[in-house]
Amino acid sequence: MEKEKKDRLDMQLAFILEADKSKNIIRQTYLADGSRKENDAEHSWHLALMCMLLAEYSNEPVDVLHTMKMVLIHDLIEIDAGDTYAYDTAGNATKQERERKAADRIFRILPEDQAKELRGLWDEFEEGLTPEARFANTLDKVQPLLLNDAGGGRSWIEHGVEAKSVLARNCRTAEGSKVLWEHAFELIQKNIADGKLKG
Amino acid sequence: MEKEKKDRLDMQLAFILEADKSKNIIRQTYLADGSRKENDAEHSWHLALMCMLLAEYSNEPVDVLHTMKMVLIHDLIEIDAGDTYAYDTAGNATKQERERKAADRIFRILPEDQAKELRGLWDEFEEGLTPEARFANTLDKVQPLLLNDAGGGRSWIEHGVEAKSVLARNCRTAEGSKVLWEHAFELIQKNIADGKLKG
Repeated sequence: MEKEKKDRLDMQLAFILEADKSKNIIRQTYLADGSRKENDAEHSWHLALMCMLLAEYSNEPVDVLHTMKMVLIHDLIEIDAGDTYAYDTAGNATKQERERKAADRIFRILPEDQAKELRGLWDEFEEGLTPEARFANTLDKVQPLLLNDAGGGRSWIEHGVEAKSVLARNCRTAEGSKVLWEHAFELIQKNIADGKLKG
Repeated sequence: MEKEKKDRLDMQLAFILEADKSKNIIRQTYLADGSRKENDAEHSWHLALMCMLLAEYSNEPVDVLHTMKMVLIHDLIEIDAGDTYAYDTAGNATKQERERKAADRIFRILPEDQAKELRGLWDEFEEGLTPEARFANTLDKVQPLLLNDAGGGRSWIEHGVEAKSVLARNCRTAEGSKVLWEHAFELIQKNIADGKLKG
């Protein structure tokens, strides 16, 4: 193989091995069976599967491949920046800066064209201004609600989460899909009634 | 929501929660850092990421979305059938029948149109007769080689795997991508030289 081509493949494979670290970035959400917390790689796979099966509920038509790419890579920056729990106020104050620095390092492991593509996808996800970014955000918010509900609200109970915090965090979830948000909202109400979420 | 639409969403969400069990199906491959074995959800996410970044190396042009869907769902049948280690002869004798039964149950949790689509993707992956299935198979074979190499060949050493078994298992890997197989073959040779794989 020519040197230039070999260098390109080496950069791509270095990135793919770097991405492996996502499997060790632990989120606060428990698996549906409540046995342990899930990690970023599992979470991203779950979102891609949801994207494939639930795209019909997007408020606006979406490019499924584009949305899928976005959810597959949206949490890679946590390899450096770590997972910031949704209801951790102090952590969230510094989150943006930590994540931007991480994006600067991680995506640049790739050849320039792909570094640009992935950074573009991540920026798009963060900005939330396209139909695909809005739908990706909805999936990212609804998935932990599904798991929390299935697992008996363990993460909410452990952190003493209040329903108003969950609602504030989900203030834009309906923008991606009214149908999915309606379902998620029912789950939230049920968990308030069951005492899993503080009303 | 109308009852018919509600039933459809309920079936889709039941499937998405069922799929969560993939996070507990443990493969024999260790993470790149050698710390623990990876699970099916993580593996499938990794393949989807590879599909996104390495499609240029497919021998034939591939529909990236179609290939990505295939790798995202290809191991769901292991929720029932379990992971059969590549070099477990007895397990592999009964594998096909166990996996077919699993596919019959798992995909049917979905509404009929999506059950048919996912079963079709799984059958296509298993049959290996399309460019997408050939490339998906190559990714599925190359990914554990990358991790095994990065992690010091721990899985190969523990199972006393012989290079000829790895080569037999990879007899069709070049059909999806000559470039990726060439790289994987170099890794195999290096690991024989290093005594990680029995020559």
